[in-house]
Amino acid sequence: MAVSVLTYDTAHPGDTSDLLAKLSGFDVSRIKKLALLAKTEGNAELNDYSREYALQSATIALRAHGGDALVHRTIFLFSTGCEGAITPFGYLFIDYADAEGTQPINDRALTIGCARSRALLPHEIGRVMHADMVAATVNSAMADTGVSRDDVALVIVKTPVAGASSSSSSSTESRITSGQSKAIGALGAGIALGEVDRSRIKGFDEDPLLYTRRAMVFSGTEFESVEVLVLANKPGASGNLSVHTGFLKDLLDADAIRRTFAAAGCKIDGGTVTDSDRVAAVLLKVGVAADGRLRGRRTTIKSSHIDMDKQVRAAVSGVIGSILGTTRSFISANTVHQAPPGGGLCACIIAGER
Amino acid sequence: MAVSVLTYDTAHPGDTSDLLAKLSGFDVSRIKKLALLAKTEGNAELNDYSREYALQSATIALRAHGGDALVHRTIFLFSTGCEGAITPFGYLFIDYADAEGTQPINDRALTIGCARSRALLPHEIGRVMHADMVAATVNSAMADTGVSRDDVALVIVKTPVAGASSSSSSSTESRITSGQSKAIGALGAGIALGEVDRSRIKGFDEDPLLYTRRAMVFSGTEFESVEVLVLANKPGASGNLSVHTGFLKDLLDADAIRRTFAAAGCKIDGGTVTDSDRVAAVLLKVGVAADGRLRGRRTTIKSSHIDMDKQVRAAVSGVIGSILGTTRSFISANTVHQAPPGGGLCACIIAGER
Amino acid sequence: MAVSVLTYDTAHPGDTSDLLAKLSGFDVSRIKKLALLAKTEGNAELNDYSREYALQSATIALRAHGGDALVHRTIFLFSTGCEGAITPFGYLFIDYADAEGTQPINDRALTIGCARSRALLPHEIGRVMHADMVAATVNSAMADTGVSRDDVALVIVKTPVAGASSSSSSSTESRITSGQSKAIGALGAGIALGEVDRSRIKGFDEDPLLYTRRAMVFSGTEFESVEVLVLANKPGASGNLSVHTGFLKDLLDADAIRRTFAAAGCKIDGGTVTDSDRVAAVLLKVGVAADGRLRGRRTTIKSSHIDMDKQVRAAVSGVIGSILGTTRSFISANTVHQAPPGGGLCACIIAGER
Amino acid sequence: MAVSVLTYDTAHPGDTSDLLAKLSGFDVSRIKKLALLAKTEGNAELNDYSREYALQSATIALRAHGGDALVHRTIFLFSTGCEGAITPFGYLFIDYADAEGTQPINDRALTIGCARSRALLPHEIGRVMHADMVAATVNSAMADTGVSRDDVALVIVKTPVAGASSSSSSSTESRITSGQSKAIGALGAGIALGEVDRSRIKGFDEDPLLYTRRAMVFSGTEFESVEVLVLANKPGASGNLSVHTGFLKDLLDADAIRRTFAAAGCKIDGGTVTDSDRVAAVLLKVGVAADGRLRGRRTTIKSSHIDMDKQVRAAVSGVIGSILGTTRSFISANTVHQAPPGGGLCACIIAGER
Repeated sequence: MAVSVLTYDTAHPGDTSDLLAKLSGFDVSRIKKLALLAKTEGNAELNDYSREYALQSATIALRAHGGDALVHRTIFLFSTGCEGAITPFGYLFIDYADAEGTQPINDRALTIGCARSRALLPHEIGRVMHADMVAATVNSAMADTGVSRDDVALVIVKTPVAGASSSSSSSTESRITSGQSKAIGALGAGIALGEVDRSRIKGFDEDPLLYTRRAMVFSGTEFESVEVLVLANKPGASGNLSVHTGFLKDLLDADAIRRTFAAAGCKIDGGTVTDSDRVAAVLLKVGVAADGRLRGRRTTIKSSHIDMDKQVRAAVSGVIGSILGTTRSFISANTVHQAPPGGGLCACIIAGER
Repeated sequence: MAVSVLTYDTAHPGDTSDLLAKLSGFDVSRIKKLALLAKTEGNAELNDYSREYALQSATIALRAHGGDALVHRTIFLFSTGCEGAITPFGYLFIDYADAEGTQPINDRALTIGCARSRALLPHEIGRVMHADMVAATVNSAMADTGVSRDDVALVIVKTPVAGASSSSSSSTESRITSGQSKAIGALGAGIALGEVDRSRIKGFDEDPLLYTRRAMVFSGTEFESVEVLVLANKPGASGNLSVHTGFLKDLLDADAIRRTFAAAGCKIDGGTVTDSDRVAAVLLKVGVAADGRLRGRRTTIKSSHIDMDKQVRAAVSGVIGSILGTTRSFISANTVHQAPPGGGLCACIIAGER
Repeated sequence: MAVSVLTYDTAHPGDTSDLLAKLSGFDVSRIKKLALLAKTEGNAELNDYSREYALQSATIALRAHGGDALVHRTIFLFSTGCEGAITPFGYLFIDYADAEGTQPINDRALTIGCARSRALLPHEIGRVMHADMVAATVNSAMADTGVSRDDVALVIVKTPVAGASSSSSSSTESRITSGQSKAIGALGAGIALGEVDRSRIKGFDEDPLLYTRRAMVFSGTEFESVEVLVLANKPGASGNLSVHTGFLKDLLDADAIRRTFAAAGCKIDGGTVTDSDRVAAVLLKVGVAADGRLRGRRTTIKSSHIDMDKQVRAAVSGVIGSILGTTRSFISANTVHQAPPGGGLCACIIAGER
Repeated sequence: MAVSVLTYDTAHPGDTSDLLAKLSGFDVSRIKKLALLAKTEGNAELNDYSREYALQSATIALRAHGGDALVHRTIFLFSTGCEGAITPFGYLFIDYADAEGTQPINDRALTIGCARSRALLPHEIGRVMHADMVAATVNSAMADTGVSRDDVALVIVKTPVAGASSSSSSSTESRITSGQSKAIGALGAGIALGEVDRSRIKGFDEDPLLYTRRAMVFSGTEFESVEVLVLANKPGASGNLSVHTGFLKDLLDADAIRRTFAAAGCKIDGGTVTDSDRVAAVLLKVGVAADGRLRGRRTTIKSSHIDMDKQVRAAVSGVIGSILGTTRSFISANTVHQAPPGGGLCACIIAGER
């Protein structure tokens, strides 16, 4: 049993040919869990359906490949927005029962834990019990792979937003925003990780000093339940991968990214990672300060017709791309309660000896 | 006589308060030439008038400060687009008759040369004579400051596009695009710099292998004549600034940027410029390959609702910002005939000993 | 055998619940042909995948309802863009073998003819043979339902664009635009309808005076073959529907719309259609003049960050919506070779006696 | 003394040539008051500076024409957004001391009243005292031209928003939105017109049933004071113009528009105004219901990447344009507290006998 992390490309959001090609190297019956983390390339506005299209296409592909049983063993996380130096692509996490076994090369190795809550009722969304449900789902995901919170490097959370179509009322007051849904997910993850004191939670997206440090949270109107993917380094696990986390003070903080890779055992020379072939995955989530300022100066990130998340993703694609020499990074924005305001999180999965 | 390069901020495109504050340190009667290179923050689409607004505002401010005579001694270059980690700001180049004189600290120092052509007639725009006029204007600008083409580090060209309103005809066939106008400007500059063989010019934006290496070209429907600003290192000139040029193979080419700063005498450590207080100005112009691919992989830079130039500027802002630790860089895109496809140009002005 | 035209709503492009509800009233085995004409609500830019998502979703739904056989008897025409007073919805055309028969109430009744060409090869797209293939497919569709060109009120054409992903080359020169694909489709339909003299075709999107009068053409990179749906009034056919066509001189030409409905037998009073419950379908395709002017004055339809087609659709939604009192109209733009420049086409299907 | 209403075109927001041409027919010394109501063509997003550019350009032009004194006698109302069938243009209201006098042809004639409040302090904006100040300014404007509230057909209000740059704090909580600023302006106007019960005001943009009926409100971060232009029919006034107001139940309510013109004395035939040469001005402000539905059906007006106001303006341009046969209408959206939800207001100025 070991976790593999593969990368697949997409010619468009509905393209699953490379996903299936990569899957074809694995015996379906020995796939214990799958997780798809994909960046899709829609316009990332209210009328973007690229994520739903990609999700439907991937589900069709997996069902054709391994039946409903494979679909049920899979967690899908599709995030929209590939602005700048970003290739639309997906990471495929495969927890696989390998007959020969993979000898551990470090004392710990990457494992993944998955969990899904029951569907939330519309009136539950946006309340403290929503955060509690996130926390419980994170705990289930840790239990799923037998790790403690200290083993965890990254928690990926999907959390629902009550969409317009799910409500019979025309009231907008009772709905929560995507940002609030992410805030709830972050605080819930923080409770489970021991990084957020539940008693300090007064509301969502209110206290910027209350944040978790090892979570990336995504929201969507198409979700009904909370889903969690935990990435952890488990003592004694087999496999040659390990996962590492670092913290960016702002979106230009290349030094923090380099330190994260260095701590993960990579070689850095002249500002770039020189053994980037060992990098199995990199995930970044970075935000921007409330006043839109960066390094003490005004930017137009929050005062443009282009949504701030798009500008952040594009700028970060330059930072990470110039360090790793690649356009395949999973970059997202909006770090509400997932970092101090303007800060961010970098996670990487590295193959080989640390 | 020495050239100073100052930086001024703008709260919005019409804001000239910091420009005037910076100018107030200089005696108007001793200002020989001014050049304003500013990034404005409009939407950079067909219905963006932020550049015209900024130009009108700056002209009003300069006229109030130094009369029409000062306005006539000034070259204005306003470029739209501050996406990502970019602060809307301007560089103020002042060629100033300093009573005490500034002792040269290097054998060469920055000088600026300016020239403006006569207004082009609508039927001249987009033809080879348009490129010839650019070449002649570049030659005039070199003569203006007494340098040869080998002394030149960077030629900044403004070149007209025949706008819809300047034509009584509804025909779109005879109009040239902004890209074609830039192409013409680049080839014209290349002729003057000896980098482009005039006899090889068959058309504009056609032969990607024909390019100049030391020009940044901007186009606008509001221009009627060609204007040129030459930045050169003149032997024996006074002043403590020098200008340097480097070449990027693509928009993630941080190493090329670092090499440019190193060659200019800056200190680089761990991937960043550690004496960035010596950097008086940095200008970048980078493009994207015709197929939109980068480092061998697909991007959506050319297949998105967001114009490619905006994505390039935002991504490059991350690259340069993480090297210099600043959001004040003059970044533009579309390098047609100004670099090999997908490549780019970096220029920096550095204070102090090389 | 009679044709029914039903309307179904969609909560989002992937929603097929109302489509299936409407279909449930029909015995699948007696459905001879289906046609779905739907407006989807994506951003209608390069990175819009709402149409592909809607198409995939509708195909899944029809397959679940009637198997691959039903899918093969169906023509899908999904058009993006619901700006303004437009409800995302679809028309469902059902050619149905009705046991009892529907007595003809007029001497002619609506019939639909369908045809599909072979897949075009990449090098065929954009050439005169592409137009010839459109013409041949229109002829096949007329033959399919046994009508002559004089019986035809409207020809709906889908025609392929060679998309980036279908080409191994990075060259953009050899690809045709969406507008050129529509131009070819229009000229091909015009040949079949006897409205365009094939010998006058010099190129596509070149001669604005060469146009067909009874065709609406749609293009898409996802199409490989030409598909045609012919709407005709067939002598002696059963059913209570008839189809009518009118011509708009420009997008504000409400009088032409009213005349079309009046000629179709509808009652008009005070500027509005008062028996709009008889209107089974309305389709409009309107363009804008090359210079973007309307009624002698400048508009910003062609000089805005918002694509002209979106502005046209929204404006036309006000014109037709205020006449019919509905937001359910199938409105599209870009009438290249389908009307004189700036003009348009209105088609309506009316129930009952003329 | 009589009021003239002229129309001037603009080639771009900075173009004042037609404004000056129209003004040239008047003796500056006899111009008592001027009002410019202009539609500008920017992108109408956060980074649109077209309105500021137009305002600066118009001010320069008026100052050149009549000095600061003329500028001070002028009210400027520039509104962005010319989507669809709208020509960027301006209305020029001139209150002119005519030596010969214009014989009244009706018992009442159009007069304009203007007033401007002191600059609001940042902490005053968004509070009830802000609404009170609007009411007081409306009262001043009525007094300025000697009319009572019953004589008033339309009150045009400009009201400030506290912009980011006017605040030293990075807090967004204490700022009001553009919508809230308009809501305050509407309620304030309603108090002055006797249409809104001040004691029922609990907050802004909260109670949709509280609305004024004869006000169009505009907000802008560039305003510091409240400015009001009152259009009234004054008993015994000279001049041949009169102003009329009608109410639309929704944006497709062409009948309400036709009734308004009919009540103003225009001839309507077959749905169109046949004596539209008598129409000196038409102003429309229409909204959309909170749930985005229209005539009982879903629209994407509130669920698109295109802002709802733009879609409303474009759709309304089709409605009014098809009635009047013109693209010169002053159309705006967002009717918060200026109409019942989804409703709207139509005002027209008609020349000649009623």
